[in-house]
Amino acid sequence: MIDAVRLQGPLGYEFRDPTLLECALTHRSGGPQNNERLEFLGDAVLGFVVADELFRLCPRDAESKLTMMRAALVRREALAGVGRQLGLSEYLRVGTGERKGGVVQRDSVLADAVEALLGAVLVDAGFDTARALVLRLFAVSIERVIAEGTLKDAKTQLQEHLQARARTLPTYRTVARDGSEGNFEYRVECRVVGIDGFGAGVDSDVRAAEQKAAAALLQLLRKPDAQEDEQQ
Amino acid sequence: MIDAVRLQGPLGYEFRDPTLLECALTHRSGGPQNNERLEFLGDAVLGFVVADELFRLCPRDAESKLTMMRAALVRREALAGVGRQLGLSEYLRVGTGERKGGVVQRDSVLADAVEALLGAVLVDAGFDTARALVLRLFAVSIERVIAEGTLKDAKTQLQEHLQARARTLPTYRTVARDGSEGNFEYRVECRVVGIDGFGAGVDSDVRAAEQKAAAALLQLLRKPDAQEDEQQ
Repeated sequence: MIDAVRLQGPLGYEFRDPTLLECALTHRSGGPQNNERLEFLGDAVLGFVVADELFRLCPRDAESKLTMMRAALVRREALAGVGRQLGLSEYLRVGTGERKGGVVQRDSVLADAVEALLGAVLVDAGFDTARALVLRLFAVSIERVIAEGTLKDAKTQLQEHLQARARTLPTYRTVARDGSEGNFEYRVECRVVGIDGFGAGVDSDVRAAEQKAAAALLQLLRKPDAQEDEQQ
Repeated sequence: MIDAVRLQGPLGYEFRDPTLLECALTHRSGGPQNNERLEFLGDAVLGFVVADELFRLCPRDAESKLTMMRAALVRREALAGVGRQLGLSEYLRVGTGERKGGVVQRDSVLADAVEALLGAVLVDAGFDTARALVLRLFAVSIERVIAEGTLKDAKTQLQEHLQARARTLPTYRTVARDGSEGNFEYRVECRVVGIDGFGAGVDSDVRAAEQKAAAALLQLLRKPDAQEDEQQ
């Protein structure tokens, strides 16, 4: 477990009261001073800031669209993704059994910790600072959900694209592993029966490489000429 | 229908942009410039401000208690109550058919309009002003939910009190109507078989008089000596 204060770098915020940071990083299995109350607060400030931002950035969208976009942005998997980008698993304080059980990698635990961090910043520095942090952490996702109307990952989007065209589902294959122990890079290829082109992605995480491969193939299929080819 | 700007008195806020106020008071049956988007925003700011307030006022309460209290404060019936206190029904713009159908008295419609008003104030004057308005409109409810851990109305509380003691349910009877047409005051008495004492309440609204009568009887029953009497 890394010392909590080192998270302040990736987080881009230095706590006046570091005990708030420690509390936000403590899972309920890690002791009585855990992050459940801060999570309650962080969930509320996140929901509001995202709603406010969508309201202003999307002046023509109906309430139903705003609600859908907000739900996509604050859903558990999306929050866990933010947690993984921050490398939160390394900082979480959990019970000994829970650490062995891999609890620190769970979406729900990471998502709760992200919310708790937002709550901790709100308590430590007030609304404006918490708001700025939300907007920084979620900037890319907000842009994407507004542009695409969804935050579905590339593999899901590709699958839906293919199903809508009565195509078979794609297959993902790891075709190469480069680098040395603890520092591998995987190359994944994504192919669909009956489609000549394919997508490829490289990442130190196989699942991330698959997503990149899916995104590459999806981009190929969405090109006008490729779509014609695809419809043959 | 009363001119929207006259609501600014009871609301305690004067809009820089009165079209926002009009929009907040327009039900979706009242036209395309209706309050659905503002309701989305107001719901979010209300949820956050209430969560933040409970977090600070109740430092010893667990997340589950905070969540329960917040739910009680922002539930439809509670928001509709705030709307009735503001006399919102008189100001709402709805379609002609909807007005005849009594839509402006519906809990859901009133609750949505209250949220939309909060959203409108947020857009008009920013977070601090919206927050102050939430805290003013909900001050009594917040105090009560913290003191009692619930926002159940007096009739519900009385019923639960009696059921827990295997008593029969109370009866409410309007025993007097004073005043003149359009300005009546009703006196309601609340009685329970086997209990000597009774509660009485007076109000221009019969249902409010019933609530007052229930509260009076409940107060009587909760006195130590009355409870002994009750247990005979």
